[in-house]
Amino acid sequence: MLIMGIDPGIAISGYGLIYHENNNNKVIEYGVLRTNPDISVPKRLEYIFNGYMELIRKYNPEAIAVEELFFNKNAKTIITVGQARGAALLAASLEDIEVFEYTPLQVKQAVVGYGRADKPQIQEMTKMLLNLKELPKPDDAADALAVALCHIYSFKLKSIIDNGRERA
Amino acid sequence: MLIMGIDPGIAISGYGLIYHENNNNKVIEYGVLRTNPDISVPKRLEYIFNGYMELIRKYNPEAIAVEELFFNKNAKTIITVGQARGAALLAASLEDIEVFEYTPLQVKQAVVGYGRADKPQIQEMTKMLLNLKELPKPDDAADALAVALCHIYSFKLKSIIDNGRERA
Repeated sequence: MLIMGIDPGIAISGYGLIYHENNNNKVIEYGVLRTNPDISVPKRLEYIFNGYMELIRKYNPEAIAVEELFFNKNAKTIITVGQARGAALLAASLEDIEVFEYTPLQVKQAVVGYGRADKPQIQEMTKMLLNLKELPKPDDAADALAVALCHIYSFKLKSIIDNGRERA
Repeated sequence: MLIMGIDPGIAISGYGLIYHENNNNKVIEYGVLRTNPDISVPKRLEYIFNGYMELIRKYNPEAIAVEELFFNKNAKTIITVGQARGAALLAASLEDIEVFEYTPLQVKQAVVGYGRADKPQIQEMTKMLLNLKELPKPDDAADALAVALCHIYSFKLKSIIDNGRERA
C-alpha cells in the first residue's frame, strides 16, 4: 500500500510517501511546500492546496495520514495551521482519498514503541524503519513520514486484530 | 460595488451579498451552508468549499470580507473554524477575489458606531442599514452581512481619506 503523510502549515507544509509491502517500507518521495510570506494568506493557501493536489494526482495514495493538532500552541498558530490543514484536507477530499488522523501519542507509540519518546528518537526510528542513510530534512518532512509510518503500523495491527476476530 | 461577507464554520457557514451604490445598500442574497455532522471533516470542508465557489461564480463579488477569528474561543473550536475558513479563503483565491479581514471591534465601529456594541445592537443596525423588515436569520447570515457592511463603510472612508490626501 502507498500512504502519504502530511504535516500542513502556512509557511512550510511537509509530505512523505511510503510504499509498504511484505513488511518492507520504501520511501517514494518526501519534501516540503514553502509559501512566500509576502503574499496574501488566501494565495498561500492556494499554493498549499495546489501542491498537495499535484502530489495526490501524481502518486494516487491509498490513504492520507495527518497528525492531530496540538492544543497547547497559541491561538494564532492554531488558526493559521488550521487554515492550511483545511486546504490540505480539501485536496484529499476532492480526490476521494480517505484521511486518517493520529494523535502525537499514537505516532510515538507506533514509530518508537512508547509514548514518551522525544523528537530525536522519533526521527532516528523513522530513519531506521525507512532504511534511510540520512535523517529526513526538514522536520516537517520527517514528521510527515512519521505519521505515514504510524498509519501503516496501526492499519496492519488493526488488520491482524480483525482477522483474529473473524477466525475466532 | 458588490461585496460578499462570509462567516465560515464547520457546521454552519454564513454568507451575505450587498450591492452598494450612491449611499444605498441592497441585499442581493444571504443565507447559510449547513454540513452534515455524520460525514467526515474533509467531506464537510468540500461541501463548504463548493458552496462558496458556487456563490462566488454566480455573483462575482468585487471583494470578500471576513471577520478575524476570536482568540478567546477554545482550541478545538479554533481548529475546526480555522479549517472551514481555509476552505472558504481558498475558494476566494482560486476565483481571484480579494479578501479583507476585520476585527470584531472594526465591525462594531463601522456598523453601530462604537466598539462596545452588543450583538442585538449590531443586528438591529444591520437590519436598518440594509432596509430589511426582519432581522436576518440565523446569526451566521447576519454576521456575514455585518462584516460585508463593515467593508463597504471602511472602504468608503478610505477612499475619502485618499482623495483628501491627493487634493492636499
